[in-house]
Amino acid sequence: MGNYFKDNEDLQFYFERGIDWAPLVELTEHHFKSSEGPANVAEAVELYRDIADLIGQFVADDIAPHAAQLDREKVGFADGEAIHPDRLQGIFDQIQAMELHGMCLPRELGGMNSPLMLYFLTSEIMGRGDVSVMAHYGFHGGMAAAMLMFSLREGTTKVDPDKGTILETRFEKFVREIARGDAWGCMDITEPDAGSDMARLRCKGEQDEDGNWFVTGMKLFITSGHGKYHFVIARTEEAGDPDDPFAGLGGLSMFLVPTYEERDGERVRLATIDRIEEKLGHHASVTAQISFERTPAFLIGKRGEGFEYMLTLMNGARLGVGFECIGLIEAAVRLAADYAAERGSMGKTIDRHEMIADYLDEMRTDVQALRAVCVHGAFQEEMATKIGLHLGYKKDLPELEQKRLERAMKRHKAAARRVTPLLKYFGAERAVEHARRGVQIHGGVGYTKEYGAEKLLRDAMVFPIYEGTSQIQSLMAMKDNLGAILKNPREFVRRGAQARWRALSARDPLEKRVAKLQATTHAALQHLIMRTAGDKLRGLGEHKVTEWPDAFLKNWNPKRDFAFAMLHAEHLTKMLFDEAAAEILLEQAKAHPDRRELLERWLDRAEPRSRHMLDLIQTTGDRLLATLEEAEATAAAAE
Amino acid sequence: MGNYFKDNEDLQFYFERGIDWAPLVELTEHHFKSSEGPANVAEAVELYRDIADLIGQFVADDIAPHAAQLDREKVGFADGEAIHPDRLQGIFDQIQAMELHGMCLPRELGGMNSPLMLYFLTSEIMGRGDVSVMAHYGFHGGMAAAMLMFSLREGTTKVDPDKGTILETRFEKFVREIARGDAWGCMDITEPDAGSDMARLRCKGEQDEDGNWFVTGMKLFITSGHGKYHFVIARTEEAGDPDDPFAGLGGLSMFLVPTYEERDGERVRLATIDRIEEKLGHHASVTAQISFERTPAFLIGKRGEGFEYMLTLMNGARLGVGFECIGLIEAAVRLAADYAAERGSMGKTIDRHEMIADYLDEMRTDVQALRAVCVHGAFQEEMATKIGLHLGYKKDLPELEQKRLERAMKRHKAAARRVTPLLKYFGAERAVEHARRGVQIHGGVGYTKEYGAEKLLRDAMVFPIYEGTSQIQSLMAMKDNLGAILKNPREFVRRGAQARWRALSARDPLEKRVAKLQATTHAALQHLIMRTAGDKLRGLGEHKVTEWPDAFLKNWNPKRDFAFAMLHAEHLTKMLFDEAAAEILLEQAKAHPDRRELLERWLDRAEPRSRHMLDLIQTTGDRLLATLEEAEATAAAAE
Repeated sequence: MGNYFKDNEDLQFYFERGIDWAPLVELTEHHFKSSEGPANVAEAVELYRDIADLIGQFVADDIAPHAAQLDREKVGFADGEAIHPDRLQGIFDQIQAMELHGMCLPRELGGMNSPLMLYFLTSEIMGRGDVSVMAHYGFHGGMAAAMLMFSLREGTTKVDPDKGTILETRFEKFVREIARGDAWGCMDITEPDAGSDMARLRCKGEQDEDGNWFVTGMKLFITSGHGKYHFVIARTEEAGDPDDPFAGLGGLSMFLVPTYEERDGERVRLATIDRIEEKLGHHASVTAQISFERTPAFLIGKRGEGFEYMLTLMNGARLGVGFECIGLIEAAVRLAADYAAERGSMGKTIDRHEMIADYLDEMRTDVQALRAVCVHGAFQEEMATKIGLHLGYKKDLPELEQKRLERAMKRHKAAARRVTPLLKYFGAERAVEHARRGVQIHGGVGYTKEYGAEKLLRDAMVFPIYEGTSQIQSLMAMKDNLGAILKNPREFVRRGAQARWRALSARDPLEKRVAKLQATTHAALQHLIMRTAGDKLRGLGEHKVTEWPDAFLKNWNPKRDFAFAMLHAEHLTKMLFDEAAAEILLEQAKAHPDRRELLERWLDRAEPRSRHMLDLIQTTGDRLLATLEEAEATAAAAE
Repeated sequence: MGNYFKDNEDLQFYFERGIDWAPLVELTEHHFKSSEGPANVAEAVELYRDIADLIGQFVADDIAPHAAQLDREKVGFADGEAIHPDRLQGIFDQIQAMELHGMCLPRELGGMNSPLMLYFLTSEIMGRGDVSVMAHYGFHGGMAAAMLMFSLREGTTKVDPDKGTILETRFEKFVREIARGDAWGCMDITEPDAGSDMARLRCKGEQDEDGNWFVTGMKLFITSGHGKYHFVIARTEEAGDPDDPFAGLGGLSMFLVPTYEERDGERVRLATIDRIEEKLGHHASVTAQISFERTPAFLIGKRGEGFEYMLTLMNGARLGVGFECIGLIEAAVRLAADYAAERGSMGKTIDRHEMIADYLDEMRTDVQALRAVCVHGAFQEEMATKIGLHLGYKKDLPELEQKRLERAMKRHKAAARRVTPLLKYFGAERAVEHARRGVQIHGGVGYTKEYGAEKLLRDAMVFPIYEGTSQIQSLMAMKDNLGAILKNPREFVRRGAQARWRALSARDPLEKRVAKLQATTHAALQHLIMRTAGDKLRGLGEHKVTEWPDAFLKNWNPKRDFAFAMLHAEHLTKMLFDEAAAEILLEQAKAHPDRRELLERWLDRAEPRSRHMLDLIQTTGDRLLATLEEAEATAAAAE
């Protein structure tokens, strides 16, 4: 009888003290106007804790012990349908019986009306049991919530403006079906020739004379793609230059596509599962290739808005991967620590050997830092979304209140956007690294199937690839940061001066260290912006800082000018995560002195790492860029 | 029709210019006194090149295309015997037909009498095709050579002192059997409770009244353990304190144990294969568990010398792993580069995206640096061994000549010993890292079985574990280096001053940079030795540098005093490899200006890495050591 919630102090911290539950619960429960819901914040959080406790026990007793079997059996494929082995099906039958798929769906649609935060926190627990079970589970409630959200956004949902309850919604039948656990969804983006590069998508959306939409094309690497409801991104307008990464994005639209229906109790397929990928790991989660051939589809929002809807989906998915990574690292560190505490060598157990102790210490520190950033990101994202929904159905707000909420929404949105690529990057990279260390700590048996250490590595290897590769996350983080500087250089200069000042003046030595870390990141950004702006900057002495943007953007060639920053995007991203985690942990430490120890551990790791990244950014890259430019020139000459 | 030798410029460099073949060939061919061998160095090298060419073609055409199949089929196990699938057997039939197992065995025993260097260089080629095939191949000729070497060492081989040919040798029958390809060997060290910690070995060697030896016990993780001839390390004397890592080593002896024999055409087992491990990868190579029950055995050398014989075996094995890692990285970088040159995204192929280009550049640089260090190490090791053999059978050398050779042997031995743990460490860690990058560059398809990228990662994961873990290599390198300083502090101080001086004075900017790198490593060693000597050093101001050793060793507690250095052993090892590679590449660059470009690429990577390691050594570790000491104190109090 284990319990993956109760045995995890750091996770409990967030339920008890680490999350500002009040505003989240108030927005979620519409200020407790429903008679069916909890009466106040404390009651709500108590309920969430009970749910986490239940899931913690379920995962420890009914998922984790079968992880090796799930890995071995995989999901089968026969007669065009994916086949869940009995063990996997049994687990999802239990999840259905526990009614977990409706966790975050409104009560009036058959759900429990919990905040998404509870979903994320418990998904971490599930991931610790088996990340591929967690991933598949996530494509249930998450996709139903997306249906609801999209419908609200496009204006096809009616909300009671007083109670905040849903009166009617476009995809109600589908949402209820998923809440019951009778179906699930997925998101279909990637195609054979278009992964991160969505301007090249070729899947088509067409309308007949009666206005009905149909989708045609092939989609690849679709996680849980054996599900019924597919969000499909498809082209409804011709692309511009297919080589221009932005030209093609405007022509994309979002569709909701049921891929089968029941007729007389028989399943009739509306889209074909071509195959199920044979993967390195993540075996309880299906990765499918799907073909649509004039499959009836529901257009979501307006044509051409597909890319924006998709970004919303992906944001949530990236946060989800962050929590998935926490679950896996948590599993890896505990497995390794247990083994190391048993295995003796040279007169003591190996967890008391310096190098192994250092690995375990870093694993523990990283998982806590990652959890802090993920919880922060999830909080900001959910606050932004829920304030937005609130603004959507509360049409009669006083203007001042409306303005206040709009500002709050923007602030939360920006905070979420800042950390989302960072946590996806760091979580994925560290999950791989720590799973690998877990194998190493096991020595010879780590390389065998015996303890399950190698399975964690195989499972982790998908994280840096799916939902946007680590490289894409880095580029996003880099562009967001450099873009912000170009937009408001004065603010950038101010922040740098402030960090340097606090690094000298702060009374709290930990605050000093955080400020110093910020100053290091600032120096890296400064170097990158100077190099990015290239020759244009040489003349900047003549300009005021506020005139920089114009000076920068004159004769701008994003392809070439960004090369230096693109090369160092990953180095910068590491610094940005280290800095963000330090800031978030500092906030925690200020409120809860028992968290100072964690911040200190984190800074011990982050400081030399950030110095190293700054060194790389300041001293390397020119040789490689020269080689690349030469190659470009040769290629251009050959064309 | 591929050719893994001809398509590899860097490898060809070593055949053509990068290796000082003359002394190696002269020692191997006993100054060309045999009428069957080549007549001179040039003829010999020409022959080696032909062999490499043949193997390059064989691997490209007959091994590499089947790597996925070998991985899928694995080696079976039924009725107590391992079963090679047809494809694998077919490959080894071809190797046998090509008579490759005798490559480095004397002509008079059925071999080709090539230097071990040729074996290593061609094993790299074979590893590029499939590392597990290469590993199993290595347990043929390599084990026969060990039989011969051990017999020479213990004095049971007669050599013609004039021609250097073998007149008779103890294990001739076995050696010939292996040379023909009818058997292979393996080394049995690890036991369930004793991996790196050999003082805990419990397998027993016993003698009956007639002086016959028998071995009893269980051995684990035996690579190619389904072979006939096992070098078994077993205890013949009682261990002292089993918790003292050194007390137990003196009681170990080395045995050669045939594990089956043919009686009336039937195989009769003398030792039992208990099982074959189900591993993450490396599937054409068997990892077996073996039980001996009073199995007849041949004692090698004297009882109690087992640990030393074993070290000889392991040295060669570690060098072998280095070349295996080269093969795998070579495969990973080429697979990734080919894919990246085809895959388009954002208007160009992804090998022209900055981050991917940077990965590929680092992979290419690392494999070349690793090859340089491995070739250097193999050269030094073989020179030392062959001079040693020469000294063994040339009893009538003039004293001066004998002294000269002894000095040369010692020098070569020390040079080999310096780099062996470094190349095993760096090769293994980088093979994993670069195989992982190979997967990442492939994106989604990298996570599937389609291109074989994930197989390389699975195969690579064994490298940091077998033949001494990365942690053990680090500890060895650290102890060797700190030990040398304690033994000769004056020399250490001199080397540091010299490096700092050359960093200022050298005319060649690359030489300057290498000297600066040496100075960085020197600073790290200095910090480690100061911290290691701890309190004792505080009073050193009163002593001359030459009196340090005594001051150090007074009241020495190796367990506690070494803690800081043990914690940083891996950081130091990275620096030591970076430094050694830079020195070796500098030598190459001095002789061959076209190698300057490689040295520059290497320094660009090594410099910031070394600065980072120095930073870690100088600024971190105290918190962790304090935690560990606390844990020790708590544990001690509880006892």
